[in-house]
This record gives sequence, structure tokens and C-alpha cells, in this order.
Amino acid sequence: MRMSKRLPVRMLLVGVGGVGQRFLRLTIDKAETLRSQLGLELHLVGVADSSGAAACPSGLDVERVIDLKACGKGMSAYPTWGQSCVEARSMVADVEADLLLEASPSNLVDGQPGLGCIETGLLRGMHVVTANKAPLVLAFPRLVDLAREQGVRLLYDATVAGGLPAVNLGQRDLAAARILRMEGVLNLTSNYILTRMEEDGLSYQEALADAQAAGHAETDPSLDVEGWDSASKLVILSHGVLRDPVALEEIEVEGITSVTKELLDEAASQGKRVKAIASADWDGEAYRYRVGLSWLDAGHPLAQLRPKQMAITYHTDISGSITAAIVEETPVPTASAMLRDVVDLYAD
Amino acid sequence: MRMSKRLPVRMLLVGVGGVGQRFLRLTIDKAETLRSQLGLELHLVGVADSSGAAACPSGLDVERVIDLKACGKGMSAYPTWGQSCVEARSMVADVEADLLLEASPSNLVDGQPGLGCIETGLLRGMHVVTANKAPLVLAFPRLVDLAREQGVRLLYDATVAGGLPAVNLGQRDLAAARILRMEGVLNLTSNYILTRMEEDGLSYQEALADAQAAGHAETDPSLDVEGWDSASKLVILSHGVLRDPVALEEIEVEGITSVTKELLDEAASQGKRVKAIASADWDGEAYRYRVGLSWLDAGHPLAQLRPKQMAITYHTDISGSITAAIVEETPVPTASAMLRDVVDLYAD
Repeated sequence: MRMSKRLPVRMLLVGVGGVGQRFLRLTIDKAETLRSQLGLELHLVGVADSSGAAACPSGLDVERVIDLKACGKGMSAYPTWGQSCVEARSMVADVEADLLLEASPSNLVDGQPGLGCIETGLLRGMHVVTANKAPLVLAFPRLVDLAREQGVRLLYDATVAGGLPAVNLGQRDLAAARILRMEGVLNLTSNYILTRMEEDGLSYQEALADAQAAGHAETDPSLDVEGWDSASKLVILSHGVLRDPVALEEIEVEGITSVTKELLDEAASQGKRVKAIASADWDGEAYRYRVGLSWLDAGHPLAQLRPKQMAITYHTDISGSITAAIVEETPVPTASAMLRDVVDLYAD
Repeated sequence: MRMSKRLPVRMLLVGVGGVGQRFLRLTIDKAETLRSQLGLELHLVGVADSSGAAACPSGLDVERVIDLKACGKGMSAYPTWGQSCVEARSMVADVEADLLLEASPSNLVDGQPGLGCIETGLLRGMHVVTANKAPLVLAFPRLVDLAREQGVRLLYDATVAGGLPAVNLGQRDLAAARILRMEGVLNLTSNYILTRMEEDGLSYQEALADAQAAGHAETDPSLDVEGWDSASKLVILSHGVLRDPVALEEIEVEGITSVTKELLDEAASQGKRVKAIASADWDGEAYRYRVGLSWLDAGHPLAQLRPKQMAITYHTDISGSITAAIVEETPVPTASAMLRDVVDLYAD
């Protein structure tokens, strides 16, 4: 992959949590690779979080932004350029930039603040790279149309299965194939909990507490363990890969909260492993979507996944069955998926 | 993925063996998908095999080409347009086209006839999609430079691991990552034989005969079972993905011909599985390349592969460890990888 020319890119970042901070760190650690191998120079000209925003046309100090967060401070505390009364969307509306990175928390109620930021960025002619599922779940067709009208691109590989190029694989590598069945372990928290219960005999509550202590589950894990995170990813894949849009409320969703040691033992006694699977089945006319528990044979490509893994299998008409799996110890790979999209934007 | 406009593409095909024929079949079976979803219309204006060539500016009948091969005839027998004294390279030199598909047999001695065809196509301003490893193994830098000078592209996702997007994954999805270790089961024949020996207690000769009967090994299987096919793929990945070119003769290569049931039993008694692995290890300054037998723990991502599978794992600095595996029952997925490259060429 090579770039057409050396290119300074002015970027905005909305959301400076686990993924956003790691994305910023990658822009520092990979600056030389981006410059020398890909011709790309990223300049952070604006950044917003829930505390406010900081913007400077000549570029902010990325180390300073990371340090502020490490001290528990927000962007409003950025020297000289920080402001506490600026909302993220206003920053996107006011600051000149080429590219918006969106990594704010996924809000399935109304998609805000991410949705408004993405709309504003696209309307202003910015490319958008998002790791935030909710705006896509709520407004995929509108956002994609808007990007097309504006002649810019909206990329979202980071929204599904962390650092695994699940979207790219389906969208690009299988563009001419018919996907007959897609099945994935798309939520790391659920897979972590189930696998720990199975392998170490923990109860659901013990495994959840362990996941939280290890940083693999949120304090409020409900979106993950009740299946809505996986279902959100399925909505995105339905639009972006399968070309058969489904709405979140149309998906049959079952979480893992009812799983007991007894259930796992019973499955094991039949040589099966229980996994939380998100799937889409082509019936010849449309896909049938489901998120729920499946009892998999030991030889099933998703049966052997370890606690810190996610994976997706595409069963196709002309490209065989392709499974891609990732081991993801931290949120760095998810941040790297944002960087992957940035590279894609400017690659030849 | 969408196309900038409806695009008729005049294509040449060199090599009408197992992969070439299946590629042609895909252009028929997927014509509607290519047209309606991707805006792409493929017209075969020339085709060559060892018997000769057929060319017609207004397009050949692809069904007719496939039928000829099914009757054991070559392209020289194509009505009106077939000629027996035309070499493939001459056809590429003489016929007006936008795109060359190269699927002739891999000849590691001098790369011909594929190498000459690819050079000629690039020099004439054609994009090239190849499933033929030898020209890349022998002349990767020259061909890539030539494509760049001519403002065209040379794509080769079909050369490594059949229908698995092994090249694409490394080249595009991991463009900003450092690959610390790459390891793959890249040769289906070897994996088929080893797995059958392990699982069904066959001797090497029995498993080889079974592979040949099932169409998963050539009559002369030496390139596969002696490791040179895997090593060729490693050379291509070294240039195309790792940016650390290695020559075929620099790779330590061990085949599977010496494997016995006793060896596999001994490995099994230690809880290990024996796989033929192609690998590249980054030592901080360069990669160390190897093709040979590895004793893998049962939990290793490549240990559980079934007979008709290939796979690759990329261990990276920022994108975790990503494994992609394919189940490939026939050469159709390899042909689909050529179609994938064609779609990539003309996608937005």
C-alpha cells in the first residue's frame, strides 16, 4: 500500500476514553511509519470530551492531551486552548479539519453526541472514521447517503469485533460472494465470562467480577451481557456487508445472564461448548438475524475461542468458509482499527 | 464497496486450467452481481493456453471456452478465432485490453510463460491479476516497479492460500502494524496429507494417494510436499506484506515426505499436532524465514486445522494476533480470489 503523496491531515477527535486515548498514542508511536511508509502526517487540531474541547489550528500537543486524561482531567483543562463550555458538535462545526475521529460512548437511545458530530463533520466535507456503534445503528442509511453526497467517506471497521477487520473482510474481500451464513463471537465481555465459567468453573457472578477486575467488562455491563452490543454489531454488518438492513428491534436477542454452571456442564457432557453467537442466515430471500447462546461441536471454528478472543465466520458460495479471529488483550487493537481506516482513506 | 460508474472491462486470460476455467465460470455466474452491485461488465477478448490462443475484439463466448476445455480441447480449437501457432505472450502483445488475468502453471525455473505475459501486459498499460506464483517469486520488484511506472496495478491475492485474503489482510489491514511473527499453513496438499495421516492412521503414501484421488494433490506433488509451494508463498508475502524481501534460495525449506506414523504418534503422545508451517520471525532487524514441520500445542490457532483448510496468523504490535482460516473444498475459492482482485481494481 502506498500513498499518492505526502499528506498533512488535520484531524478532530471526539471522545478521549480507552479507545480514543490509545488512538492518540498510536499516532505518536506510529508517526514515523505513517510518514515514511505511507506518506501520512496526522495533526490533531481539535479534541473534545464530556468536559469540553480544545482546538488550535497549528496543532495540539498529543502527549499533553494524553497526560491530562492520565491525571483525570478533561479537555477543558488544556492550557490556553481548552474551553469548558464548548460541546463536541460545536467544535466539529467550527474547526477547520479534513478528518473526524469519533470515539465517544455508544448511546443507543439517541446516538448523541456521536451522531450529531458525525453528521456535522460529513456536512462540512470531512471524512469520518468512527469506533462508535450507536450512530450507525440508528442512522446508517442517512449517514452513508450524506457521505456520498458530500464526496467523502465514512469508515467504521473499528465498530465490529475490535481490531479484527470483520467489516473489511466482508465488504471488500467478499464483495462478489453471496454470504450464506455469517456467525460471530462479537462481544469480548460475554465470551470472556462464558469461557472463564466453562474452563475454571466460576459462577456467572464470579466470572463477571473477574472480567470487571481484568478490565474486560464495564461497571455497568448490561449492554454487553444482555446481547445488545452484539446485536448492534449485527445491525452494522447487515447494512455494511450483507446489504440487507435490519433494525435493532427486529433482532431476536438473548444474553448470557441466565447461564449457569449446570448448563455448561450439561453441554460439556454432550461434547459441546456454549458460545454467545451473533448470526445471519440467508434463506434465499433475506437474512434471519439472531443473537443468542449456541451449543457448538468441539470442531466448530468458533468453539475453541479463548477468553480474550473474538471471531467471525463467513460461509459463502464462491469463497469457501472463511473464519477470522483475534486475540485482543487490551483496547489497543480497536484503536488500531481506527488507524487502519485512516490509512485506508488516504491510500492509493 | 461501490464503483464510480458502469464500466466495461476488456480482459485477457492466460491459462485455462482448474483455476482459469473456474474464474471464467464465475464471470458468468456472477455477471449480474458484478453489473448491478459493482457496475462492472467483464468481456473476454482473448484467451490463451498451451494449445494456442483465441481473440476477438467484440468478445469471446465464455461458455464456449469452458465447453472446449471440458471436451479436452484447447483454445486453438475455438471456432473462427482460434489459432494454434500463437503464443500467449504474442496474444497479450497484440490484443487491445484493459486487464490481464494470469493463471498459467507456476514455473519456478524461468517463470514462463506467465512472466513474459505479465511484463508485456504491464508494458502495454494493462492492470494484471495473477494466480501464478512463479513470476512474483522470480521478479517481484521488477514487476511492481513496472506497474508503478505504467500507472497500473498488479494484484496477486490469489497466489497465497487460495481463497483466503492472506495478502490483503497483511497488506491493507495491517499496513500500520509491525508484524512480529507470521505463521501459516499455506499448502493445502501438505496439510491434507498430514491431517489424514494423523486422524486416520494412514501412511504417507496412502495419504498422498488419497489426496491425489480427491483432487487435492497433483500427479507430480513434489512442489507441494517438498515445501517449495509454501516457500514461494513466503517469498511473495516477504515482498508484498513484510517489506523485507527474501529469495527462494535463502529460505530454509523442509517438506513432509519424511513424516511417518511413528513421528505423528510420538507428537500425539505429548499432546502435540504436527503441521507444515511457513513462518517469518522478526528479530528486531530482519525476518527469519522457514518452511518446515512444527509440533504445535493443541491450543495453537493452527493446530486444529482440518484436511481441506489453510490459514495464516499475523502476530502484531498494535493489532493483537489475527488468524484467518479457510475451508476450501475445490479450486473455486482460488478463482474467487482473482475475481476479488478484479473488483478491487475498479472499486471506488
